[in-house]
Amino acid sequence: MADDKGFTLWFTGLSGAGKTTISRLVAEELQARGSRLEILDGDVVRENLSKGLGFSKKDRDTNIRRISFVADLLSRNGVPVITAAISPYREIRAEARELMGDRFIEVFVKASVEVCAERDAKGLYEKAFKGEIKEFTGVSDPYEEPLDPELVLETENQSPEESAGRVLSLLEERQLIPAAQPA
Amino acid sequence: MADDKGFTLWFTGLSGAGKTTISRLVAEELQARGSRLEILDGDVVRENLSKGLGFSKKDRDTNIRRISFVADLLSRNGVPVITAAISPYREIRAEARELMGDRFIEVFVKASVEVCAERDAKGLYEKAFKGEIKEFTGVSDPYEEPLDPELVLETENQSPEESAGRVLSLLEERQLIPAAQPA
Repeated sequence: MADDKGFTLWFTGLSGAGKTTISRLVAEELQARGSRLEILDGDVVRENLSKGLGFSKKDRDTNIRRISFVADLLSRNGVPVITAAISPYREIRAEARELMGDRFIEVFVKASVEVCAERDAKGLYEKAFKGEIKEFTGVSDPYEEPLDPELVLETENQSPEESAGRVLSLLEERQLIPAAQPA
Repeated sequence: MADDKGFTLWFTGLSGAGKTTISRLVAEELQARGSRLEILDGDVVRENLSKGLGFSKKDRDTNIRRISFVADLLSRNGVPVITAAISPYREIRAEARELMGDRFIEVFVKASVEVCAERDAKGLYEKAFKGEIKEFTGVSDPYEEPLDPELVLETENQSPEESAGRVLSLLEERQLIPAAQPA
């Protein structure tokens, strides 16, 4: 705790792109190095901060602003945070960057709709393709790709472990986390 | 930051009882001692986490659960927090205590409805007495006093400075903050 520097890894990407999986791997490695990490996962936040909100642009924006408010509270107090919500709109991500300044690190977790749909064990994409789920990002609702993120994780071509490794390398380069100890 | 121990001072009491005033005084003193403090004030939280919620029991409960979620995130990472929302219902305060365990310190900021109404510069109580504001705690909506809080601040009989002093003494006794340096 003592030497933690606050930052927010702002994961953004489609459902199924790998945000949750990669954030858990990063969290495990940070814990192993004696650092903390809070993950503000999309589902956790919907349950605890945004119950009752839907998926219209307005409701999505409200949801993301709440995540941003909490990530700012934590990171400005030295707590490392990963947010792992789809956060499809550029403008609201820009607001989060504005709020957190240098603490904000945008990580584009990138995979095509087709690959995300193939990975989808819950069959959400299939329902979205059939029109059974409305306002589904990437299918019936927009996803605005980041134009200049700090990191792009091409999860079609690299394993979750490789992606997590790239995140950790960036944090080490910026001296935001302690280096790994030799085994 | 390094030696901060996480805790949540859960202020509860009527509008006008002194929650915000006392919490600011405590924050100033903690900053002077090199410690941080985040204040989750009722108004700030309504704006940032709970816009759209009203003042029915259900909406109030949701609002308080959100405050509790965020206070837990901060305090479990070593960040001292004051929550300063009315939080009128015992059951939901008990939930917050359950969530945070030893980190939860309930502070009853106590003043009668009559005294709170006298202090009220915005005239909210007057409007509530006339029935122009519905669901106003202490007038047309219940306030359930804490049965066994860690601290009671009798703000009718002591100044905000005295109340803040009592809070700081409790935190010192519990070794949650550094002692004041002699001037």
